[in-house]
Amino acid sequence: MIMVHINENFLKLKAGYLFPEIARRVTEFSKNNPEAEVIRLGIGDVTEPLPPAIVKAMHDAVDDMASRDSFHGYGPEQGYAFLRDPIAAQDYQARGINVDADEIFISDGSKCDTGNILDIFGNGNRIAITDPVYPVYVDTNVMAGHTGDADDAGRYGGLVYLPVTEENGFVPELPSEPVDLIYLCYPNNPTGTVASRQTLKQWVDYAKANGSVILFDAAYEAFISDDSVPRSIFEIEGARDVAIEFRSFSKNAGFTGTRCAFTVVPMDLKVTVGGEQVSLHQLWNRRQCTKFNGASYVVQRGAAAAYSDEGRQQTGELVKFYMENARMLREGLEALGITVYGGVHAPYVWLKTPNGLSSWDFFDVVLSKGHLVGTPGSGFGASGEGYFRLSAFNSRANVETALARFKTAIG
Amino acid sequence: MIMVHINENFLKLKAGYLFPEIARRVTEFSKNNPEAEVIRLGIGDVTEPLPPAIVKAMHDAVDDMASRDSFHGYGPEQGYAFLRDPIAAQDYQARGINVDADEIFISDGSKCDTGNILDIFGNGNRIAITDPVYPVYVDTNVMAGHTGDADDAGRYGGLVYLPVTEENGFVPELPSEPVDLIYLCYPNNPTGTVASRQTLKQWVDYAKANGSVILFDAAYEAFISDDSVPRSIFEIEGARDVAIEFRSFSKNAGFTGTRCAFTVVPMDLKVTVGGEQVSLHQLWNRRQCTKFNGASYVVQRGAAAAYSDEGRQQTGELVKFYMENARMLREGLEALGITVYGGVHAPYVWLKTPNGLSSWDFFDVVLSKGHLVGTPGSGFGASGEGYFRLSAFNSRANVETALARFKTAIG
Repeated sequence: MIMVHINENFLKLKAGYLFPEIARRVTEFSKNNPEAEVIRLGIGDVTEPLPPAIVKAMHDAVDDMASRDSFHGYGPEQGYAFLRDPIAAQDYQARGINVDADEIFISDGSKCDTGNILDIFGNGNRIAITDPVYPVYVDTNVMAGHTGDADDAGRYGGLVYLPVTEENGFVPELPSEPVDLIYLCYPNNPTGTVASRQTLKQWVDYAKANGSVILFDAAYEAFISDDSVPRSIFEIEGARDVAIEFRSFSKNAGFTGTRCAFTVVPMDLKVTVGGEQVSLHQLWNRRQCTKFNGASYVVQRGAAAAYSDEGRQQTGELVKFYMENARMLREGLEALGITVYGGVHAPYVWLKTPNGLSSWDFFDVVLSKGHLVGTPGSGFGASGEGYFRLSAFNSRANVETALARFKTAIG
Repeated sequence: MIMVHINENFLKLKAGYLFPEIARRVTEFSKNNPEAEVIRLGIGDVTEPLPPAIVKAMHDAVDDMASRDSFHGYGPEQGYAFLRDPIAAQDYQARGINVDADEIFISDGSKCDTGNILDIFGNGNRIAITDPVYPVYVDTNVMAGHTGDADDAGRYGGLVYLPVTEENGFVPELPSEPVDLIYLCYPNNPTGTVASRQTLKQWVDYAKANGSVILFDAAYEAFISDDSVPRSIFEIEGARDVAIEFRSFSKNAGFTGTRCAFTVVPMDLKVTVGGEQVSLHQLWNRRQCTKFNGASYVVQRGAAAAYSDEGRQQTGELVKFYMENARMLREGLEALGITVYGGVHAPYVWLKTPNGLSSWDFFDVVLSKGHLVGTPGSGFGASGEGYFRLSAFNSRANVETALARFKTAIG
């Protein structure tokens, strides 16, 4: 009846295939095996409480809101200086990386930012993503009308897929055709692998040569365990001219339910339109001022506490805790003869399914024999077929039990 | 240098003219009059602290996050049932309005929702907005490429402007040409006026007849002071087939810095595409699941406390406090011979500038003679010329002082 035009690009989206299908199989299994205690290693959600320094800061901030003199109404859309300043100082400048506080935009989440960033880009860009990939990059481009329909393998027309597999050491090759927007996520979700300084330099050089912009998702940066691995795209010379970086408090500070993240858009990132230089920083600022009203004051106070001496120590312990889980998963599976990637600088372990099993067949084996749930690699893209993702976000006891069960199921 | 395509629609946006220009004039005045204590009645930001019941709920929620057993990671993208259920029960069902909890989407703000909603609509829609209007409706359409350039009065080509002025009693006429998307905001920002049941029925009937969708912004609903005025578009028969409603905790519960709002997309709202019925509820759900990760747990707990017996009483007192400010402003200005609208069911007073002064000339008079800052009506649209907005969000003392100064400045 209604004549209004809807965004028909939404109709191209595959109907949230992966996690509903996992839920369906787990529900069916549990119905048939009501006594089985299923352990979930599938979802990248944290399990440990907020660190005490953050809890205290949030309590103090709630008290601020309880009194007229310390009450906070609308805050700056870009975030408070009390959070932007320590981010610039500690995450960047202390590491010799040139990022200024006013290049940082605080938000309520990296999923929002990596999706919303497309608002400032036009149509007609050629878009490169790795395969497998975090599905939000793909789905937001589908919704924005930047793709054609999906094929049977789930690949959308118009996107340039860059496979990352065992064969290429999980290092995507530079595209053979020119691309305009490049999504890179390091440490990588879902493979848990990282990019070397040299690899990132190739991408920055490519972007400079081709007039591309790199959208660099560093949500898992805190899990990098030594200085051989770059933590920011802005460690690479020239990146300020070609890259935007996304970071999050979700995984390092346990903020998946608290919601805080940030995006760095350098002042140097400019595009020439009709002979005029247009600043992407200004476009993103305008986008945020028009469609966002700042992250919650209480939440920003909590995030800022992650930069206090206590907060740094406590979030560091949180990261260590999860990385010990990752180490146990990695080594435990290797001991069973499984080929395992990731889990060294990232909270994800990406295993190659044994005996050439498909991702979903392996899912069924570990569910039925081990009562364990992981994520089939094929759900992240066609090149994830034959792989399986395990998350290190869990209790120690669950990881220990899971390893014992893997031994029974596939040992 | 860069060759990537940006969204050039951003370049059509007038450069955030209104509030920067206010800031510029106030700064200049203060520089020349360092002793003057300026009172700001311009911005719609709350001033009073969060109610105690909400403060307590947020403290409890922070404590939940401090312990493994009560910790909350990713929540439902649509919001928690503990908040959606009381909204449905108290804001709607208790008033005989048919809205179900699963039609409610919790978010971090109405500015975000009213902007983001365009994601689910296509190009080619004819869009109607009232004039004057909340600038976000206009700017988000400009950014989405739904308009042409702006003319000298600030009106963008392609939008259908519906004047609301003294002449038509601030009731917009139905458009003479068919429109597809209709933005309505009642109680209205900036005019403070309301729509009768009969007026809203005309719009719902129009939408049904023309296949349009009404985007109904009810952010100021809590300020409606008697039952003669509809609080929800869904009080109108048939609205579930044609309307989406936006509400916020910003103004009734003091959440401008805490961030929580919600959007109601009825299950009945469907569009036929290629012979198939497409549910706008499903499209919005997909949009939120892809580009949003739920509002902060602690914040949602705070918002839910507004529905407890204590919370209702305390937010009610907050609303009464601001509405007493509005009454004082309205009656005080009327006593000075000023013609005043709004301020009865809304926290905004919309005054007609005396002696035919332009909005900005009146701004300069009250700033220079009264050291008072308000918002020039022309900043909200061409038909706002000759009007001036005052906000009731202030301390009682500031309102009293402001009235005394108005008397000196324009009495």
